[in-house]
Amino acid sequence: MSADTDSSVPTEVHETLMQATYRALCAEGYADLTMQRIADEAGKSKSLLHYHYGTKRELLVSFLAYLLDRFEEKVEATEDDAPDERLRFLLDKMCPDEDDDGDYDRFGLALTELRTQAPHDEAYRTQVARNEVAIRERFADIIRDGIEDGTFRAVDPDRTASLLFAALDGARLQRVVASGVDSNDPSGPAHDTPADVRAALETFVVSDLLADDGDDASNRDEVTARPETDDTDATEGDE
Amino acid sequence: MSADTDSSVPTEVHETLMQATYRALCAEGYADLTMQRIADEAGKSKSLLHYHYGTKRELLVSFLAYLLDRFEEKVEATEDDAPDERLRFLLDKMCPDEDDDGDYDRFGLALTELRTQAPHDEAYRTQVARNEVAIRERFADIIRDGIEDGTFRAVDPDRTASLLFAALDGARLQRVVASGVDSNDPSGPAHDTPADVRAALETFVVSDLLADDGDDASNRDEVTARPETDDTDATEGDE
Repeated sequence: MSADTDSSVPTEVHETLMQATYRALCAEGYADLTMQRIADEAGKSKSLLHYHYGTKRELLVSFLAYLLDRFEEKVEATEDDAPDERLRFLLDKMCPDEDDDGDYDRFGLALTELRTQAPHDEAYRTQVARNEVAIRERFADIIRDGIEDGTFRAVDPDRTASLLFAALDGARLQRVVASGVDSNDPSGPAHDTPADVRAALETFVVSDLLADDGDDASNRDEVTARPETDDTDATEGDE
Repeated sequence: MSADTDSSVPTEVHETLMQATYRALCAEGYADLTMQRIADEAGKSKSLLHYHYGTKRELLVSFLAYLLDRFEEKVEATEDDAPDERLRFLLDKMCPDEDDDGDYDRFGLALTELRTQAPHDEAYRTQVARNEVAIRERFADIIRDGIEDGTFRAVDPDRTASLLFAALDGARLQRVVASGVDSNDPSGPAHDTPADVRAALETFVVSDLLADDGDDASNRDEVTARPETDDTDATEGDE
């Protein structure tokens, strides 16, 4: 749990309220979000929300910290995998699921609206910046690890990380703003942009990072003295 | 001039009002923008704005169409250049200028706020989608031309275009939302992200597109191997 989370909130209550905030943001969007709606989603009283988090703004800062915590947890769970698998896992995480029921768009829109408030509000800005920096750093860490163990060729890890994160972030932005979340036909002309960008990143970046690796996994073994990883499950559904 | 522009507006008046809208958006942001502020910027009466454009919303739809017109004009002016030059020109256009005085951030924020309104408003959405599709198409056209004349190796032009556009769009979003336009220290932790992403696109995409170039390299830089450093200055001056 992040340092920004109010430690007086019991973990279970925090989890319930953060998940309720997620659902309320998907349902209402950012502009129409109310503490009452979040309380209703959580089956708790509005006064409990105010008691634990203060204002709506403070609750949303906690929510951004919660998103980051969850992101970190998921990424940390893959830490023992090979760098190329970890990289693909992270890239896939930023794309819509096969069974996405519209939350990718609705939450993407609400989050973008919240992010555009950040330049005007220091608490938002600090947390938004923290989340962005952490995601970028995670990409860079994986690339650095991959260079070190010989999985990836030598590239600038920070620049490459910036490209990967920005490309999928921009793809989501473009899909979301050109779509009609409130209309009967929610999918717009950029509906396939995240999948297209993911595929292009595979072609131009991931393949390139792996270019000098060939198919010889024993190369990597020599360098790292690690047991050979099982490549059979490489996440390549999008080739 | 796009079909969406009210043909009853004299060209000069339209230009004056659109430039005033740009300045007003930079100064006020999207949420606080008023017709009075735009009128003041233009030195015209508010009633003239309403007479020519209708509501503020309709004026902003015209403004989006105006942005697209200007974009198309600038791109068309480079049509006789080599595909790699045209591609770099377009990529550079989406990055902050050396002499940027904050408009890249302020206008980027206002435009993002406007774009997040699009899913809720059909007129916005139609125009936002039109602008996005046009920019993506321009990238794809250049890549297609480059493949056809042998400048670029064969790639999927649409996917590659999606990557280029989304990466720089996402980079701007990330820089803008992590920056403090209203504060004393406007630059945030993602200040260099657009330049980093631009450099990474040069390394991973532009260089790769040029990689198999060898048949007809008489009047362009020979790229036989990946450059160690990024040569983003190879384009003509970006205004």
